[in-house]
Amino acid sequence: MPITQTIALDAMGGDFGPDVVVPGAGLALKENSSLKFLLVGDEKRIAPLLDANPGLKAASTIIHTDVIIANDEKPSVALRNGRDSSMRLAIDAVKNGQAGSVVSGVNTGALMATAKMVLKCLPGITRPAIAGSFPTRDGNILMLDLGANIACDAEILVQFAVLGAVCARAVKGIQNPTVGLLNIGSEEMKGNEQVRAAAAILSNVDFPGKFTGFIEGNDIPMGKVNVVVTDGFTGNVALKVAEGTAALMSHFMKTALKSSPLAMAGGLLAMGGLKKAKRQMDHRYYNGGMFLGLNGICVKSHGGMDAYGFSRAIAVAAGLVEHGYNTRVAMEIEQLMNQESFVSSLAAQMTERA
Amino acid sequence: MPITQTIALDAMGGDFGPDVVVPGAGLALKENSSLKFLLVGDEKRIAPLLDANPGLKAASTIIHTDVIIANDEKPSVALRNGRDSSMRLAIDAVKNGQAGSVVSGVNTGALMATAKMVLKCLPGITRPAIAGSFPTRDGNILMLDLGANIACDAEILVQFAVLGAVCARAVKGIQNPTVGLLNIGSEEMKGNEQVRAAAAILSNVDFPGKFTGFIEGNDIPMGKVNVVVTDGFTGNVALKVAEGTAALMSHFMKTALKSSPLAMAGGLLAMGGLKKAKRQMDHRYYNGGMFLGLNGICVKSHGGMDAYGFSRAIAVAAGLVEHGYNTRVAMEIEQLMNQESFVSSLAAQMTERA
Repeated sequence: MPITQTIALDAMGGDFGPDVVVPGAGLALKENSSLKFLLVGDEKRIAPLLDANPGLKAASTIIHTDVIIANDEKPSVALRNGRDSSMRLAIDAVKNGQAGSVVSGVNTGALMATAKMVLKCLPGITRPAIAGSFPTRDGNILMLDLGANIACDAEILVQFAVLGAVCARAVKGIQNPTVGLLNIGSEEMKGNEQVRAAAAILSNVDFPGKFTGFIEGNDIPMGKVNVVVTDGFTGNVALKVAEGTAALMSHFMKTALKSSPLAMAGGLLAMGGLKKAKRQMDHRYYNGGMFLGLNGICVKSHGGMDAYGFSRAIAVAAGLVEHGYNTRVAMEIEQLMNQESFVSSLAAQMTERA
Repeated sequence: MPITQTIALDAMGGDFGPDVVVPGAGLALKENSSLKFLLVGDEKRIAPLLDANPGLKAASTIIHTDVIIANDEKPSVALRNGRDSSMRLAIDAVKNGQAGSVVSGVNTGALMATAKMVLKCLPGITRPAIAGSFPTRDGNILMLDLGANIACDAEILVQFAVLGAVCARAVKGIQNPTVGLLNIGSEEMKGNEQVRAAAAILSNVDFPGKFTGFIEGNDIPMGKVNVVVTDGFTGNVALKVAEGTAALMSHFMKTALKSSPLAMAGGLLAMGGLKKAKRQMDHRYYNGGMFLGLNGICVKSHGGMDAYGFSRAIAVAAGLVEHGYNTRVAMEIEQLMNQESFVSSLAAQMTERA
């Protein structure tokens, strides 16, 4: 049975603010009746939306503020001037223990900078990462980092492997998740130095997953591993290329099914089946970028999401709390750092680089 | 009217050797009757295939060799032991002026290492890049580097921009191609140092395209620019993620159209339209990785290609020769290096880094 938990929602974040966040909370509550919400934002806009959903109203508390972080606000400005913003107050609620997690649709940079400053990193974690799920042939795959850290040395990549493996185990129930390092396959070039060094360490240490070596870009949609580890530059490009290619394919398909009366008739007949295919690739289902490695659960919702998409991000946050993600990952990181083989591998890398 | 030109074909490269290369040459000849071929490889296997196509036989010369580079051969081994291999002799034919270009399906690493050693780089080019075309909404887009250079400093990225822009102009007939630098979009992180430095230089110099700034991964399938410039690590991942996602979408679609008798009937009715969509994404059409920046035209065909796919790689090589790609690009690189703004931007970058 799900545990009772409170989630702080930045009601003003994203392109549509409370118009998406409040109904999104309503949908999440339908799926999981043990959720409570702190709705942080403009009471004048939130209250009427709550009145329309008495069940949600009973499960919610409004924390009023007039201050909003614009969706394109620079992280530095958000940090400096955002003290009373809906985003900041929602994060503060996690810091203060009023909520177990926070979900916001503001821009990634502002959210990460503020969450990092307020919540701080878990002991042993140098840098938090953004993790997300992707659709694959037989289910879905977890990838990190999706853009928080551009350049990552081997130690950071190894930390990501732990963050990701614990996430796959805790949230997805995969007992011994396979972990692959994203690399390029050509024989001549065996990838960059960091990736090779990280592979050497991961082959040498005990960690809460099974390191299966390098994978290539096409292995991601194939679902070759449970967790893909990469730096934030590559991960961000991979995420967006996948999104863009899926959109392009949908466009070609839609155009094809409108290209002649016959094709249109066929499309109508096949609609049931095609809708299933559409659901399998529905990016709303996969919404919810997890900020892993922070001392508090923070999930970023895509700014353009609708209520259903936002409810999925809430479910992601609820899952991390329910499975005690942060406690587990802190323990695993501590165990990693206490391993002789980790310390010596790392020292060897350092020496080699010097 | 197309010019008469001779193309050296590594008849033994790729997964199927002459069984794909010879019919592939036949298809290319049908499209462009001014082509001549040097077929390099095992005469016993090539000759019977030529006998089946008298027109192709008349346009072809066999250069016999028994030595074959295995598709998974390491570049260093291919270099050392491959002196009499079909791949090496085909490249030698370009070096010696017997052929204007070479097409091979062996592994990228071995082909690039050998081509680089035999043909050398064009004056002013530090490192050759691999460029390829991708399908987009309204046509196609050129991207480089796809895996030859893992780490690229700003100067290399600027050279890639010139290599790519001249290619788009020469081969695709785009007079003033738009060029974008692949980056990640988050506000907080404005990309890595190299990408930012390259952007600063490209904004400051005259080159044979129009630099439009940064683009993101999803802009590639959208076709936002004509040429995408990135390092070989990111480019290789982007290429493979796009391929994998397209394959995944096709899989979902096929499954959907088999999910019920109604869906199957619809799929049959819509088949004409769906086939068009399939053609638009047909990776065989986009086959042919161009090794740009070498003092000789070299094109890599995907190892698993069929005859149609191989014929497309031949067409790519023929196009580069026909449009005098190497002469044009050498001229443009010289002009770039003579620009005061280029020299001073570069010096400024160097100073900043030091």
